[in-house]
Amino acid sequence: MATLCRPAVSVPEYVITMEETLELARSRHPDHPQLPLALRLIENTGVRTRHIVQPIEETLKHPGFEERNKVYTAEAKARVPAVVQRALDDAEVLPTDIDVIIYVSCTGFMMPSMTAWLINAMGFSSDTRQIPIAQLGCAAGGAAINRAHDFCTAYPEANALIVACEFCSLCYQPTDLGVGSLLCNGLFGDGIAAAVVRGQGGEGILLERNGSYLIPKTEDWIMYDVRATGFHFLLDKRVPATMEPLAPALHNLAGLHGWDASDLDFYIIHAGGPRILDDLSKFLQVAPEAFRFSRATLTEYGNIASAVVLDALRRLFDEGGSTHRARGLLAGFGPGITAEMALGRWHRTSEMTA
Amino acid sequence: MATLCRPAVSVPEYVITMEETLELARSRHPDHPQLPLALRLIENTGVRTRHIVQPIEETLKHPGFEERNKVYTAEAKARVPAVVQRALDDAEVLPTDIDVIIYVSCTGFMMPSMTAWLINAMGFSSDTRQIPIAQLGCAAGGAAINRAHDFCTAYPEANALIVACEFCSLCYQPTDLGVGSLLCNGLFGDGIAAAVVRGQGGEGILLERNGSYLIPKTEDWIMYDVRATGFHFLLDKRVPATMEPLAPALHNLAGLHGWDASDLDFYIIHAGGPRILDDLSKFLQVAPEAFRFSRATLTEYGNIASAVVLDALRRLFDEGGSTHRARGLLAGFGPGITAEMALGRWHRTSEMTA
Repeated sequence: MATLCRPAVSVPEYVITMEETLELARSRHPDHPQLPLALRLIENTGVRTRHIVQPIEETLKHPGFEERNKVYTAEAKARVPAVVQRALDDAEVLPTDIDVIIYVSCTGFMMPSMTAWLINAMGFSSDTRQIPIAQLGCAAGGAAINRAHDFCTAYPEANALIVACEFCSLCYQPTDLGVGSLLCNGLFGDGIAAAVVRGQGGEGILLERNGSYLIPKTEDWIMYDVRATGFHFLLDKRVPATMEPLAPALHNLAGLHGWDASDLDFYIIHAGGPRILDDLSKFLQVAPEAFRFSRATLTEYGNIASAVVLDALRRLFDEGGSTHRARGLLAGFGPGITAEMALGRWHRTSEMTA
Repeated sequence: MATLCRPAVSVPEYVITMEETLELARSRHPDHPQLPLALRLIENTGVRTRHIVQPIEETLKHPGFEERNKVYTAEAKARVPAVVQRALDDAEVLPTDIDVIIYVSCTGFMMPSMTAWLINAMGFSSDTRQIPIAQLGCAAGGAAINRAHDFCTAYPEANALIVACEFCSLCYQPTDLGVGSLLCNGLFGDGIAAAVVRGQGGEGILLERNGSYLIPKTEDWIMYDVRATGFHFLLDKRVPATMEPLAPALHNLAGLHGWDASDLDFYIIHAGGPRILDDLSKFLQVAPEAFRFSRATLTEYGNIASAVVLDALRRLFDEGGSTHRARGLLAGFGPGITAEMALGRWHRTSEMTA
């Protein structure tokens, strides 16, 4: 059985507060006809601080897609190994114990992917499988967990390493002036997360079932416009309301497993924005407190894309975890619109339960 | 057991011959100091014809990364469904029988990926898993087969759809004037391939084992330079000689399976260029004739990146396939430098063997 072990998470050293974000919006777009709306939307996110890989002055410049992507590459190489090392240590495995690396990131593009660089730089085996995914956006954290689960189901002795590296600040586009873009400028943050899924042993979430769901005909609700200036993030105003069509998918998956999605012991949910969590509370009939891990991630780091679910899970670990065999749901949401969902039980090793 | 069924392949209607390619190289780069070398390298590829999605006059223009990517999107949407439909028909499955779509393509970038569009456009189930991979280049064809194999190993009742869509002509960069770039301008072609891996039933290659191998410290031998003008393909001159370090990896994988990589019944190999096939013949001590499927793909279509292995396999099917339980090797090679390898046996259904 595959066990998702404690995620290691790191956020960069440059911090921007909500007050600074609001002030920047005011000073940069004083004549924007929808400035009051944008400010209100940003305030409503509840994002207090975000961490970014460069000082804000650098972040606000756009040196071109080529330069941005070079920064992505350099920062990923500088920052990812330490996070991966912690995830390996926490799971008590060595690089040579890893059979597949699933690296998800939608905020920079490299070919070959960081998987190849990590294998060379950190002493993973040359026969480690590589699954780099760039096109699932915020849903990729859930997808990475699920594909690791599948891999360990196919090869029960195998171990998978998941890495989510998102530098959303490198996708800031100063010329995008729609209200959705101004909101995103106050919502997204940078972060790196890594975790090991162990085929045998380990403490954490014993993964039991996973599933994916695409809301029909919503491809253009969350998307990248790919231009010479890089990736331009487009967010449709209907996105915050997507928990209504997604809640039944969560219920269905739980039902297939003989569980009730409204009555689980823990919830690790992608905190795309505050409405996602509020609505999920309403449509799943679950107390808001159940989403405290996700809300803390949103408040302290902003939406760190595919890394959100791993950071929310890290916070459950920090809280001491759950009781042995407690039942939980993980879900990432992103472009498609796609939900990547997993069901599992908290698993303590015998010495922990004793 | 997972069976890789007959691939469907389609190449676009615009054709460029080697003679036309050589003439273009001469007329566009008359004063290039290494023109004679470039012409000789192009001639040595043995690529007689290539098929491209636009007339050559359009292909030679560079309208910008944004416009190129729009052409990629439009052409993929226009051309992929028919190929997918044929692959489904040949495997005797319906869209609703598919549990995962693995879409590999390194010549355009969309988020959400084509997987979301295909699910909506072709009636795949909303709970189809999506595995879009953009960063494994030419190795992605082998990776797609292997991840489909893994998925069907985890879920023996599942079916996987593989799609490889490569429009290499949309990555032509008129300002790249190195000899490697001029060679690539005569080597790569466009093509789309799709195939189903059936968890139960089906005729084709019964997949038994797969593996991956990264040649240490060769990340920069095949890579994309990501710029405002799009993806710039960089090919190191050491790449054609990589079969020497990769042949032992093929031998090792076969050895783990109790097979001898030099003594198999069929070989489906990525035809990156002629030297790959010549050297593999030498280092595996296999008659050149064994690589006739790969060589035919290279000659008629050029290097169509991740679609090569599926097209080479299609040619084995066209030849009537192999004998029941004949042993074979598939391998894709690409950036990393990564080899994605698979071992399997030809499987005929009872009525075919009767």
